[in-house]
Amino acid sequence: MCQGFKFAGVASGLKKNGKKDLGIIYSENPAGVAGVFTRNQVKAAPVLLDMERTAAGTCQAVIANSGNANCCTGEKGMQDAVSMARWAAGALDLPEDQVLVASTGVIGEPLDADKIRAAVPGLVNELDPDRISDFAQAIMTTDTVPKVVSKKGTLDGKSFTVTGIAKGAGMIRPDMATLLCFVLTDAACPSDLLQEMLLKSIDHTLNHITIDGDTSTNDTALLIANGLSGAVINDPSHGKPFQQILDDVLMTLGKQLVKDGEGATKLVEIAVKGAKSDTDAYQIADTVAHSSLLKTALFGEDANWGRILAAAGRAGVPIDADVIDVYFADVLMVKNGMGCGKEAEADATEVLKQSEYTITIDLKAGEGMTSVFTCDFSIDYVKINADYRS
Amino acid sequence: MCQGFKFAGVASGLKKNGKKDLGIIYSENPAGVAGVFTRNQVKAAPVLLDMERTAAGTCQAVIANSGNANCCTGEKGMQDAVSMARWAAGALDLPEDQVLVASTGVIGEPLDADKIRAAVPGLVNELDPDRISDFAQAIMTTDTVPKVVSKKGTLDGKSFTVTGIAKGAGMIRPDMATLLCFVLTDAACPSDLLQEMLLKSIDHTLNHITIDGDTSTNDTALLIANGLSGAVINDPSHGKPFQQILDDVLMTLGKQLVKDGEGATKLVEIAVKGAKSDTDAYQIADTVAHSSLLKTALFGEDANWGRILAAAGRAGVPIDADVIDVYFADVLMVKNGMGCGKEAEADATEVLKQSEYTITIDLKAGEGMTSVFTCDFSIDYVKINADYRS
Repeated sequence: MCQGFKFAGVASGLKKNGKKDLGIIYSENPAGVAGVFTRNQVKAAPVLLDMERTAAGTCQAVIANSGNANCCTGEKGMQDAVSMARWAAGALDLPEDQVLVASTGVIGEPLDADKIRAAVPGLVNELDPDRISDFAQAIMTTDTVPKVVSKKGTLDGKSFTVTGIAKGAGMIRPDMATLLCFVLTDAACPSDLLQEMLLKSIDHTLNHITIDGDTSTNDTALLIANGLSGAVINDPSHGKPFQQILDDVLMTLGKQLVKDGEGATKLVEIAVKGAKSDTDAYQIADTVAHSSLLKTALFGEDANWGRILAAAGRAGVPIDADVIDVYFADVLMVKNGMGCGKEAEADATEVLKQSEYTITIDLKAGEGMTSVFTCDFSIDYVKINADYRS
Repeated sequence: MCQGFKFAGVASGLKKNGKKDLGIIYSENPAGVAGVFTRNQVKAAPVLLDMERTAAGTCQAVIANSGNANCCTGEKGMQDAVSMARWAAGALDLPEDQVLVASTGVIGEPLDADKIRAAVPGLVNELDPDRISDFAQAIMTTDTVPKVVSKKGTLDGKSFTVTGIAKGAGMIRPDMATLLCFVLTDAACPSDLLQEMLLKSIDHTLNHITIDGDTSTNDTALLIANGLSGAVINDPSHGKPFQQILDDVLMTLGKQLVKDGEGATKLVEIAVKGAKSDTDAYQIADTVAHSSLLKTALFGEDANWGRILAAAGRAGVPIDADVIDVYFADVLMVKNGMGCGKEAEADATEVLKQSEYTITIDLKAGEGMTSVFTCDFSIDYVKINADYRS
């Protein structure tokens, strides 16, 4: 686990079901910070506050709540976000601009900030290096499991750790950041380089996952580096071992998020290769990964490959349908745009019964390739979202 | 009803459930024709055949089947499409290039053309001006009701009729054409003008509907004009009364299609106004109309307006969330980006219980406006599509 970080998570009463809904991360010393935020034009109050505060490059704590997104809440919403930071700063004896804020939950309902104010002293009292799971639970909405990933690396002979905590599970479509994601490290790094590395990593990890195609108003990814391990990153090439660990943490978290997507029963990699460019490959993988018809077929464990070709064909990229191959895991189901028959279909159906597998689309037009991770579209997805607020 | 057209629909055995699956439209005299086809890069064999044949501007019959899309079926698929036209031409004593073909159903399974060949003589024997409903049933896939709309107009004192027949109900996202749609008229019109009017009409009717966001590989809209009413269209401005009737027929059909979308329980107009341009308005209406989170909330009759703003915010158009108003029918639910409280919500919830209503998003940034018609996303949608092929 990362040195010098403490965590806590409590139930403040924001969640109607009495579960944990208020969490805090605290670094024992002032830390560098980088932040990546939603590209949604509608941004929640805590997002706007954090965008401003992370620009200075330092922070020492993050207070986060679930049960309410504090979005579309006007001036009061911004005051509430500022207050959340202030109350935490007071209890932690920190300058208030060293505290960041994140919220997730229903959009458009006023935040009951009094509950947070009342809970902050108890929350801060709970701070402990071992309570990371409490924090991870406190930021969950429709997630069914907390998501924490920790990986170790070495730089100049010094060991460092990268620990990521994230929540999903709906309104997930990658667009620079998505979801709430807090990445902590005991390595040290200048904040502009931290920002560069976080952006780079997200671009090929969290930006390659989707659950339901809706980009959240509250997406926030923070990378906080306190340097307590003694490992110091000087420049991008020197920081490569760190970048790799960061990628690994974010990709692992990303897959966990998709796997725990609302109502999801499958984690499916849509791999496109043989495209004219990586951008073309992404465009096609992304369109296929969002097709409601494919996602419902995956739920039904039906090797309905026609829906894959139909989705690929509407991705806005020129393709030659007559040369495309499609594999379910290693089963060749479509060769040169045509089905491979009953036996292949029987084998493909066996693949579809698994909970994780890859669908590969080979366009045979070039060297471009990428993957997007998606989940199936189940009856439970509809049930969860038909009455999310009740 | 249009003069000079006959119809038939029979069960050839392509549909496993024994329902009608083969239909024919016949014009007593040679007619002008215009066609608009899917922009999907993956095009079914009959689409490719019709694109070639409609370019000549004349046709006298259309043979159409459901139960199989004849798509991703290679050379044999194209031979089968040609054969379907040839068999119909033989039975009708027409040149084979005067017969068009349309198919809808599962993608990627070989067409059992022998069943069609065996059924064509009986099909042609059934031809009758009153059997339009048989034809409409024969092209249904997951549609629950046949869709036929007829409207009358007058040109130079001469009465004419426009009759449209269409099928949905899944893989529906407008992209120049969508679905199968056959529009017949007893007016006369040069085929290049027919084409112009069909394109123009589709652009603001069928291109403004969506069910599930997936563009079909088989989309075909044909406009066939046999001139038997004596009404003759000379040029666009002279043809205005015809254009209006055509718009009316296609918009009515479009709404019927969305209302009968797979699993749909609601027909919802997403109206955007106050945009900087009509294009911006469309971009936002289209994104909101496709949001899975909104569509599941509509199914759950939950006035979760935060999802509307979140979807509007990711449409790729700059918006100012702090000035947006949202109405459910005439209930003001969101004023200047914030909710209007419990009473408004109670009223909005009453609106959501209706089977048809309008959600209006006022951006207050300009004069641009448009509407997109969508449906809700229900448990039945998932059930229908999880096992469509079984």
